Amino acid sequence: MDRKVRVGVAGYGTIGQRLADGVALQKDMELVGVADLAPTLAIRALKEKGMPYDLYLVQGADKSKFDELGIPTKGSFDDLLGKVDIMLDSAPGGIGAKNKVLYEKAGVKAIFQGGEKNSVADVFFHGYANYEKGLDKSYLKLTSCNTTGLIRTVDALDRAVGLSKVAITIIRRVADPGDYHRGLTNALQIDKAPSHQAVDLMTIMPHVEATGILVHTPVTHGHIITVLASSKDGSKVTKEKALEVFENHPRIRVVSIDEGFLGNASLFKYARDLGNPRGDMYEIGLWRDSIVESGNDIMYAINIPQESVTIPETIDGIRAAMHMQSTREEGTNKTNEYLNIARWKK
Amino acid sequence: MDRKVRVGVAGYGTIGQRLADGVALQKDMELVGVADLAPTLAIRALKEKGMPYDLYLVQGADKSKFDELGIPTKGSFDDLLGKVDIMLDSAPGGIGAKNKVLYEKAGVKAIFQGGEKNSVADVFFHGYANYEKGLDKSYLKLTSCNTTGLIRTVDALDRAVGLSKVAITIIRRVADPGDYHRGLTNALQIDKAPSHQAVDLMTIMPHVEATGILVHTPVTHGHIITVLASSKDGSKVTKEKALEVFENHPRIRVVSIDEGFLGNASLFKYARDLGNPRGDMYEIGLWRDSIVESGNDIMYAINIPQESVTIPETIDGIRAAMHMQSTREEGTNKTNEYLNIARWKK
Amino acid sequence: MDRKVRVGVAGYGTIGQRLADGVALQKDMELVGVADLAPTLAIRALKEKGMPYDLYLVQGADKSKFDELGIPTKGSFDDLLGKVDIMLDSAPGGIGAKNKVLYEKAGVKAIFQGGEKNSVADVFFHGYANYEKGLDKSYLKLTSCNTTGLIRTVDALDRAVGLSKVAITIIRRVADPGDYHRGLTNALQIDKAPSHQAVDLMTIMPHVEATGILVHTPVTHGHIITVLASSKDGSKVTKEKALEVFENHPRIRVVSIDEGFLGNASLFKYARDLGNPRGDMYEIGLWRDSIVESGNDIMYAINIPQESVTIPETIDGIRAAMHMQSTREEGTNKTNEYLNIARWKK
Amino acid sequence: MDRKVRVGVAGYGTIGQRLADGVALQKDMELVGVADLAPTLAIRALKEKGMPYDLYLVQGADKSKFDELGIPTKGSFDDLLGKVDIMLDSAPGGIGAKNKVLYEKAGVKAIFQGGEKNSVADVFFHGYANYEKGLDKSYLKLTSCNTTGLIRTVDALDRAVGLSKVAITIIRRVADPGDYHRGLTNALQIDKAPSHQAVDLMTIMPHVEATGILVHTPVTHGHIITVLASSKDGSKVTKEKALEVFENHPRIRVVSIDEGFLGNASLFKYARDLGNPRGDMYEIGLWRDSIVESGNDIMYAINIPQESVTIPETIDGIRAAMHMQSTREEGTNKTNEYLNIARWKK
Repeated sequence: MDRKVRVGVAGYGTIGQRLADGVALQKDMELVGVADLAPTLAIRALKEKGMPYDLYLVQGADKSKFDELGIPTKGSFDDLLGKVDIMLDSAPGGIGAKNKVLYEKAGVKAIFQGGEKNSVADVFFHGYANYEKGLDKSYLKLTSCNTTGLIRTVDALDRAVGLSKVAITIIRRVADPGDYHRGLTNALQIDKAPSHQAVDLMTIMPHVEATGILVHTPVTHGHIITVLASSKDGSKVTKEKALEVFENHPRIRVVSIDEGFLGNASLFKYARDLGNPRGDMYEIGLWRDSIVESGNDIMYAINIPQESVTIPETIDGIRAAMHMQSTREEGTNKTNEYLNIARWKK
Repeated sequence: MDRKVRVGVAGYGTIGQRLADGVALQKDMELVGVADLAPTLAIRALKEKGMPYDLYLVQGADKSKFDELGIPTKGSFDDLLGKVDIMLDSAPGGIGAKNKVLYEKAGVKAIFQGGEKNSVADVFFHGYANYEKGLDKSYLKLTSCNTTGLIRTVDALDRAVGLSKVAITIIRRVADPGDYHRGLTNALQIDKAPSHQAVDLMTIMPHVEATGILVHTPVTHGHIITVLASSKDGSKVTKEKALEVFENHPRIRVVSIDEGFLGNASLFKYARDLGNPRGDMYEIGLWRDSIVESGNDIMYAINIPQESVTIPETIDGIRAAMHMQSTREEGTNKTNEYLNIARWKK
Repeated sequence: MDRKVRVGVAGYGTIGQRLADGVALQKDMELVGVADLAPTLAIRALKEKGMPYDLYLVQGADKSKFDELGIPTKGSFDDLLGKVDIMLDSAPGGIGAKNKVLYEKAGVKAIFQGGEKNSVADVFFHGYANYEKGLDKSYLKLTSCNTTGLIRTVDALDRAVGLSKVAITIIRRVADPGDYHRGLTNALQIDKAPSHQAVDLMTIMPHVEATGILVHTPVTHGHIITVLASSKDGSKVTKEKALEVFENHPRIRVVSIDEGFLGNASLFKYARDLGNPRGDMYEIGLWRDSIVESGNDIMYAINIPQESVTIPETIDGIRAAMHMQSTREEGTNKTNEYLNIARWKK
Repeated sequence: MDRKVRVGVAGYGTIGQRLADGVALQKDMELVGVADLAPTLAIRALKEKGMPYDLYLVQGADKSKFDELGIPTKGSFDDLLGKVDIMLDSAPGGIGAKNKVLYEKAGVKAIFQGGEKNSVADVFFHGYANYEKGLDKSYLKLTSCNTTGLIRTVDALDRAVGLSKVAITIIRRVADPGDYHRGLTNALQIDKAPSHQAVDLMTIMPHVEATGILVHTPVTHGHIITVLASSKDGSKVTKEKALEVFENHPRIRVVSIDEGFLGNASLFKYARDLGNPRGDMYEIGLWRDSIVESGNDIMYAINIPQESVTIPETIDGIRAAMHMQSTREEGTNKTNEYLNIARWKK
């Protein structure tokens, strides 16, 4: 393809804003516009910033409400679909499935986020674990935030030493900063096991048996997951080997308590101090001082920046679906280059 | 011994108050008194309740402050030591080691809580895991709250199927209700691995390899621990077998999400609704719906009521140190009977 | 009335449990039973305690679910209504209005909690502020938890010095311990002003102008309200006078930071340490060190134990509606006597 | 002065980072460098960003630790002092007083933050309330974050209608995002009244009587203050008048619940969505729907972004101390222009 791939974003919420920002950084893509329903705070901020992205209105939107606030709009959702090659659908869970009918009608590809059912897509996708499965597909579904970050480490270990089994404990942040529609106060909440993230991991990596327990906690700045991984042949996975694998992964940031990374809030603070837009981070954190051996198995803890972690893998998905790069390595490298990922490793 | 065993409590704080309450319920023990340094809220509440326990002052206490408030005192710490067979030391961490000198001088036995170093005691004690090791010993140290609850389950599984290895994730409550001297706000905090609880477990159960990761969370109503246990011979530990083992343990309360036990706060609420003094619970909770198989290993989640969980095992310790009962079964059964534990299982 | 007044409780939730406990302590009342819809944790706890209160099932309840769990029931809601003189309705907001039809049909009186609309009742009631208005009435509605505690102080000041105006800031706890259906995580949330509590105060005390702002905070152990009160004639309300008024009120507990009462969680801890069932407290806390003069006005801060604060005033309501005592003083004194309120002041 | 004013920053923590960023935006100032003691996360982030600011080491710093991490340094604190006209001291509380000796020796001016005692400075400063008092002074001390934001509104009302009295309730966030050295868990904590912010306000605005109560809450994204203000002559301050005053102030952002600003976390989210560096905001938020009349007095609620709110007034302080502009209006306008404040009002 000689021209840039044209991308639209449906749903300008927590994920949609970040997808738009990420696509806008890709030199081989063009962000055609974003679509939403109502003048939310995110849309008001877009206006206050001078409309860096064009705004389209989905069906059901009341244009007069935007007009009253002086928020310019560029047209309807159909108008947007007429101008793009592929849509990133970050509409609320369940809406994506309805939007798919429109995508099919308009003949555009789409990538759905984790809130949709797997059946909405041709392939359940992760940039590092199964890039090639996404090649030329019309409809991809991204793994959810926890699963995306988790798979980065499990896939990397699996490629290095061969894994047969993982058991995870997800210490989940219960809401994003600014969320008022959900919350938990002075309580831990447990879900029925196994957690869906373990089940999802097996869908992406069917040769690995996975299970796990999820506990919600009243915090907003990132999930923490502990992982216990067993090698395929029962041989020992050493702490040194695991650390080497993690340090070589562009989307894993190995940190330590001694450096000052005391928990999920340290990583959020660090991203703000870096000047990252919105205080976001694309990499997961992995604590060097959490890695321990359990017999021949290896155990470690990671931090998942829930708002931004799926952005790189979603952009990988565009590369696969549009066949912009043919291999996992080329695809993820290009995404990393434009998102400025792993600059600190150089 | 024909007469009741005479018990004193040093340090009338969160643990000390509950030790006193627990001992007062034992028909074969006499709570001689409690000792403290200053008129804290706990001491003021004791006075408002009409001094159900006699109060002694430790060295350094300013008696005039108690007099001003009309809080009657019975004498000095030495006076208390002169009247007891055994002291339960729940003084702040490190003070217990200093108190030991006084205990030795007075010729009284003592049981220390988890905040002291292991070297303070002749044996590191758990009522179910090593009761017999405590028999006739002069100085015992109790396992900490998390370790006490954890070992209940690991010891029970070990006796039933034989264990070789456990890997734990501790989702730790960071403060008790009413704590203002420590706290965490909107943050998860990770400790260097392995957690001391895993190391402590190995001290009590040296034939089991244990490791784990601890994450502090900003809640007050109970720790949650996920446990992955492997059998000694590699044979499968089924969900059914594990459940049977847990349901038969007097100090494990098997609960489920469907009943309404959604997390640690549900268990605290339930204990309040039961009318348990202080809303305490001696049993740990174990979620039926958290039990999952990971290959041949078994994984499950437990809830540790941190303020009260060590009370039964400490009283077991009195029984062992004073040789009131000769076996683990007799000792723990007597404690359970007087604490009214497992009444709901009958 | 020569016999005890017979009382039933509809809705055995957070408030209903405490109403039942409170009524059971009144020597001139008989708790006939409690009614609920489903085997909640509270009902399961009732069963585990050996059914100290008889349980009746409201319409729509599935008796087989109770039978399966071995929870004995005594009959239908109608059966209960046939045995009582007055119902305390603590059903979820809005259900009380529906229940009222049943109460009218059965010819029983009722007292509704703050979640119902004022129109459900003949009088909006507060034991100290307008006891006499409740005399012989059939249907009373209690003030909500914040308003009940607030009015204790405002009414007391008003009777002592005459008030014209109050402005309040409510720092609201957002959920109760054990609540999982509502919550807030790392956020303060503001309501549109004026807060309904200020408006409600004016309904009870029409001669006082009241306004205020409410901010929700992510805690569970009690609301804190700051109050700025102005005297009717503009004369100065001194700190000393206010303190004297507060110290003389049986349902106000004057505390101080120096004693160790650092905030709402200290009061909850203290109630647990007192051995109060469920760790409840009927009195509001009022910080001596919060009282400051603002010109001629007086400002102070109070703590509202939201789960239990309305219990005494609801029982006052029974006394008024059933004309058990004719005056505010006699009615509230009798309630206080049986609830053992203000024992510490003697 | 024909050349740019040369500015240094002592202490590159939460405030220091933001002071540096703010000064770097002033076209008539030059940020010479920042100084710190240890390679904190903030310093590591500075390095990862490519050292946009030169780093100097304060006395006691171990240069080898910086060398090991490859963090370039430009010299000692004395070296920095030799190159600047004025220092912004955001060292931890108490260190500023020690640094003052060095500033005097080096003949440089300085502005201290709220953590220092008032006696450290010639004038206690607020850009809007007493700009002229800072003119040509050598040592200024800024008001603390709450006081800075509060005075914006009180000063504005005072200039418009004349005030005699304010009573405030501060609902304080207890820690910043990423803070692990302080925190509060499920508790509100009250300070002895009156709060220092009320006292500080009277130091800056001696003709206004101020008092207030402060309650700490377990959140990180901004304090909320409710203010009750009385006019000098007792005349009515209407809601409309107050709103007009607030809307005309460049550093007050009037927001509403209906727009989606539900609390302090909404304002933080909005600042992130705006793309503001670190998700910061220089303006305070003021809720239109919180403004109510209390008799002739006016009541309202504001949001204080504690990490960044003092930055503009500190830069105003540079303008005053260096006599860059002679009047309050010129000084604050220039700061606002370069910080891009109030762009949304145009």
